[in-house]
Amino acid sequence: MLHFDCDYMEGAHPEVMRRLVETNLEQTPGYGCDPHTEHARELIRQACGVPQAEVHFLVGGTQTNATVIDGLLRRHEGVLAADSGHINVHEAGAIEAAGHKVLVLPGYDGKVRACDVARYVEEFYRDETWPHMVAPGMLYISHPTEFGTLYTREELEELHAVCQRLAIPLYLDGARLGYGLAADGNTLSLRDIARLCDIFYIGGTKVGALFGEAVVITRPELLPHFFTLVKQHGALLAKGRLLGIQFETLFTDDLYLRIARQAITTARKLKEAFRAKGYRIHIDSPTNQQFFVLPNREIDRLSQYATFELWGPRGEEESVVRFVTSWATTDEQIDELIARL
Amino acid sequence: MLHFDCDYMEGAHPEVMRRLVETNLEQTPGYGCDPHTEHARELIRQACGVPQAEVHFLVGGTQTNATVIDGLLRRHEGVLAADSGHINVHEAGAIEAAGHKVLVLPGYDGKVRACDVARYVEEFYRDETWPHMVAPGMLYISHPTEFGTLYTREELEELHAVCQRLAIPLYLDGARLGYGLAADGNTLSLRDIARLCDIFYIGGTKVGALFGEAVVITRPELLPHFFTLVKQHGALLAKGRLLGIQFETLFTDDLYLRIARQAITTARKLKEAFRAKGYRIHIDSPTNQQFFVLPNREIDRLSQYATFELWGPRGEEESVVRFVTSWATTDEQIDELIARL
Amino acid sequence: MLHFDCDYMEGAHPEVMRRLVETNLEQTPGYGCDPHTEHARELIRQACGVPQAEVHFLVGGTQTNATVIDGLLRRHEGVLAADSGHINVHEAGAIEAAGHKVLVLPGYDGKVRACDVARYVEEFYRDETWPHMVAPGMLYISHPTEFGTLYTREELEELHAVCQRLAIPLYLDGARLGYGLAADGNTLSLRDIARLCDIFYIGGTKVGALFGEAVVITRPELLPHFFTLVKQHGALLAKGRLLGIQFETLFTDDLYLRIARQAITTARKLKEAFRAKGYRIHIDSPTNQQFFVLPNREIDRLSQYATFELWGPRGEEESVVRFVTSWATTDEQIDELIARL
Amino acid sequence: MLHFDCDYMEGAHPEVMRRLVETNLEQTPGYGCDPHTEHARELIRQACGVPQAEVHFLVGGTQTNATVIDGLLRRHEGVLAADSGHINVHEAGAIEAAGHKVLVLPGYDGKVRACDVARYVEEFYRDETWPHMVAPGMLYISHPTEFGTLYTREELEELHAVCQRLAIPLYLDGARLGYGLAADGNTLSLRDIARLCDIFYIGGTKVGALFGEAVVITRPELLPHFFTLVKQHGALLAKGRLLGIQFETLFTDDLYLRIARQAITTARKLKEAFRAKGYRIHIDSPTNQQFFVLPNREIDRLSQYATFELWGPRGEEESVVRFVTSWATTDEQIDELIARL
Repeated sequence: MLHFDCDYMEGAHPEVMRRLVETNLEQTPGYGCDPHTEHARELIRQACGVPQAEVHFLVGGTQTNATVIDGLLRRHEGVLAADSGHINVHEAGAIEAAGHKVLVLPGYDGKVRACDVARYVEEFYRDETWPHMVAPGMLYISHPTEFGTLYTREELEELHAVCQRLAIPLYLDGARLGYGLAADGNTLSLRDIARLCDIFYIGGTKVGALFGEAVVITRPELLPHFFTLVKQHGALLAKGRLLGIQFETLFTDDLYLRIARQAITTARKLKEAFRAKGYRIHIDSPTNQQFFVLPNREIDRLSQYATFELWGPRGEEESVVRFVTSWATTDEQIDELIARL
Repeated sequence: MLHFDCDYMEGAHPEVMRRLVETNLEQTPGYGCDPHTEHARELIRQACGVPQAEVHFLVGGTQTNATVIDGLLRRHEGVLAADSGHINVHEAGAIEAAGHKVLVLPGYDGKVRACDVARYVEEFYRDETWPHMVAPGMLYISHPTEFGTLYTREELEELHAVCQRLAIPLYLDGARLGYGLAADGNTLSLRDIARLCDIFYIGGTKVGALFGEAVVITRPELLPHFFTLVKQHGALLAKGRLLGIQFETLFTDDLYLRIARQAITTARKLKEAFRAKGYRIHIDSPTNQQFFVLPNREIDRLSQYATFELWGPRGEEESVVRFVTSWATTDEQIDELIARL
Repeated sequence: MLHFDCDYMEGAHPEVMRRLVETNLEQTPGYGCDPHTEHARELIRQACGVPQAEVHFLVGGTQTNATVIDGLLRRHEGVLAADSGHINVHEAGAIEAAGHKVLVLPGYDGKVRACDVARYVEEFYRDETWPHMVAPGMLYISHPTEFGTLYTREELEELHAVCQRLAIPLYLDGARLGYGLAADGNTLSLRDIARLCDIFYIGGTKVGALFGEAVVITRPELLPHFFTLVKQHGALLAKGRLLGIQFETLFTDDLYLRIARQAITTARKLKEAFRAKGYRIHIDSPTNQQFFVLPNREIDRLSQYATFELWGPRGEEESVVRFVTSWATTDEQIDELIARL
Repeated sequence: MLHFDCDYMEGAHPEVMRRLVETNLEQTPGYGCDPHTEHARELIRQACGVPQAEVHFLVGGTQTNATVIDGLLRRHEGVLAADSGHINVHEAGAIEAAGHKVLVLPGYDGKVRACDVARYVEEFYRDETWPHMVAPGMLYISHPTEFGTLYTREELEELHAVCQRLAIPLYLDGARLGYGLAADGNTLSLRDIARLCDIFYIGGTKVGALFGEAVVITRPELLPHFFTLVKQHGALLAKGRLLGIQFETLFTDDLYLRIARQAITTARKLKEAFRAKGYRIHIDSPTNQQFFVLPNREIDRLSQYATFELWGPRGEEESVVRFVTSWATTDEQIDELIARL
């Protein structure tokens, strides 16, 4: 059986595992106060070109989003996000549980537009009753988005500019950032993202680590006392060095990007094969998530050989499906799947 | 340099690491819906003698406490705990952040007494103004406690009985449970704990795992929708099987208890050595945390060779220090430390 | 200057004031434990035909919604409401501040449809990822709605039936309930509402009281410990009898309905006058809120004589305006306004 | 039957009622944007000698405390308060419900000492694990305290100085402030309080108003967006002018202080009578709350003629009781009670 359900079905990249084993009996202080974590921080600051940034390592995406957003917002504020945003749909109300409203913007294949951000904030303050409403206090975007799409550099420049002008922080959820950086036609480097976002995180869980997300805070004054907030959110790993060692490995010799490319190569091959067979591309994603429209009987047939996700409800005749590759997807797996089409 | 600061300075027990490496490229669904996690659940249910219990795996102690307590309490209720309880002191207000008050009971070397629980609840409802106050909605204890002490079976029977009578759940924080089970003179088996507590967790982070706590819910009706609550608290690990594999390993061939014994053996040796040198035992702990009163100049001298924790403020002449052993502490390390006394 | 901005521009109905003055130096216990409040509870239970219902009095609408919803929901649940619902727009995030997400349904002139409730809940549980999402835990509606529209008896029967079937409580926000009961063509009596809703509140603030909302809980088992929750939400009035006396007065000799009718009569007259002048009715409301489309220059001209609200943004040529009448609106005021058209 | 249970058993001072009736049919905008409220703000600023202060009016004490404290603290901070503080005991966990821990200081007849505040904060930051704990973010005191005692000017100067030095705001709960200002031997004027506190509130509910508390923010930069926070806490009164009119009346011709004196005069008379009869004074309060130790049989006998509160549990032979006077207590009532002793 082949598996294309998601990008967290395996453990970690073998090199990451090797380092975890190698360092296993070292003795270090906890909570990220160890040399590996300090080294990982430095490697990330260098890769991002932001020597003054703060870098924190958390375990998973939902806890990272909840902690960062809770730290950025004041009590009367909410977070702007696309309707399809992970924080709005698939985090079990973690943002609201910390007291904040998600303020919904229209999403275009998962992306928000600078003009919609501007319109929301401007109309908000034009409404005389605004002090009775939740103030837009920050913008959340994800890159790649839930639909595998990417912001162009121009689009992120615009979002940056509008957030600057409106004086709200811009936070980028990079759960799958590696797959965005490695994508064909991508125009946004890690340095661009670090230059244009106030806070963002580099996803490890889906890109080669056992778990872990590296939060980069380019404007540390926005998140004072973040360590305590991480603890309060239950997001502080006792053996913090496990995060440090993983990111140290991923950011040595460009491993993070190198392994991400494998997911892109296999995803591209997959897309071309589906297209060649005459199937419709549902969303034109350059990243490791691929969305196709398949006849239901083809879905049923393929399900004998592979697992993948039905995207939305099953249609009468045909349905949308999602295939996800990852750093762990092999060429053999892809070839075998293609042979089954 | 020798290290006795805490019991989470190394990675995982080598057998745990071996299994993580061995299973690394297996493909499984996320979020704990995999065969390893299911197997681990079953092993734990067997070890505890509670075939109907629910078992969930979370990453760390603070998040486990916050999630369980949030799930058990209704909005008007608070949690009873010893003044020294971890939730009252060292979790950065995670309980309050979820909306609940910690109601403080006197602690006796970290333990609460059944009579104090009864008195609190009875005096509470005797006060006519009780509807204006936070109702005691559950009892939190830790075993071993923050001071390395243990409840006897009789004491836990009493706490169980009083909680039953008062109709409040009893929750046991077992961050260091292995070291309690393996301690000299311990009278409480895992089966006793499972029989007497409504919810408890078996700590992995400090006892052989990289991270991870196994929550055993012997009365599942008390915590409906716990999965969603775990997600909401940011405590759901994407690659949930990492927790499953670790606990599967720890609960195979009695590994959990076997490795805990090493911490007890070395702690006992340490205590005897300090006692033989004429130093005062501050708290008589049978577990892996040892508390001694040392002259400040001895503390300074020892600090050249070993790291350990000052427990409370430094005194004028002498101070209390804590030495912690773990599954990873070797006989050589202890001998070397003793040679330095 | 004439004022049609809202229905809370004056104090209380003179009869309410008379009773407050008359009872002013009586001595009674606080927090609603006084004979006036008990009497008011009884009068409301009788008027609603629900002898077993619990009745609580709170001060204002936002605090009532926040307290009731917080009491009804478990932590993993959210509240279904129309996009235009007061809790979703104009309560400054009070629902989210208590930890709950507002789950948005399409609104049709402020009303939700039973079929949309059913579809939301059914699609929710059909989605395999539902345990990662906020569960729909109750339905919030307002009657009259934000747009002055009313549910028919048939529609409320349907909402009741769907909520029963889905096992979620139905809560009705009756901030302007009097004006709904007194409206032309209204088909829903107080008894119908009490029969069909699990919880609702009878608005006093906008219908003759200085302040105050009467929460009727027809299924008290859904809201145990409500008194403490009211206190925790800061919604418990020390001199609770002030609420009791006001509702006692409003529910004696049918005062509540009688004074509501005056708002309806004047609103109807207003609507007919605008229609006769050829202006478009924006929403056909049978209650005390009236929405018209006026040319901007007519808006500017009228603003010299009267205050009223611009509803939404000002258009290029014409805009929507809202005129609100109340129990305090006199026939003279209406005639004077009409004369100015 | 005579009543000395508490100071909120009647309605409002007749002059306040007269003004409410007189202004009843005036039409004003809601939410405190009316001329009466603006006037009241100005009168209070003048009385306090703080022309730049912000003044907000809320309905009750618990909601005021919860809103102010929630606005002052960041997420990682808690509020320091005496163990007996109202927020720690009798507000049903409202502070925790908003996510904040109450950090307990020893109380001396309800008062906290500057040296204890300093010690708490200094020891906190001396503990290396402080980032894992709730940071002391502000100080809450009440004046008069729960026990009717008063801070001297010197003591408040010291608290002010220590808070300044530690850079934490000082907030004074003045639920019974009038009775403190009017007390025999009081050394703290309203101007002193305004000079020494960052935020405080002047209690109306217990001192002549139907309800209402005036929050004076002498350092408005500490509480930006307070209006929205008030709304979010459900504490915004629609007909805000009701609060304005009441405080306008209370702060005209010194009414607030004048009526408070009546409570002091009657309380003093009461105390002298009890003392003359040989009963022990439990706490020597100069304000309107008086605490005596009475033989249980005297308590039972007196209970035939008067209501008052048992303070703490009933003793074997004798118990502590509390008698409370107010602006509404008449000399006749006191004489009648004394005659019954």
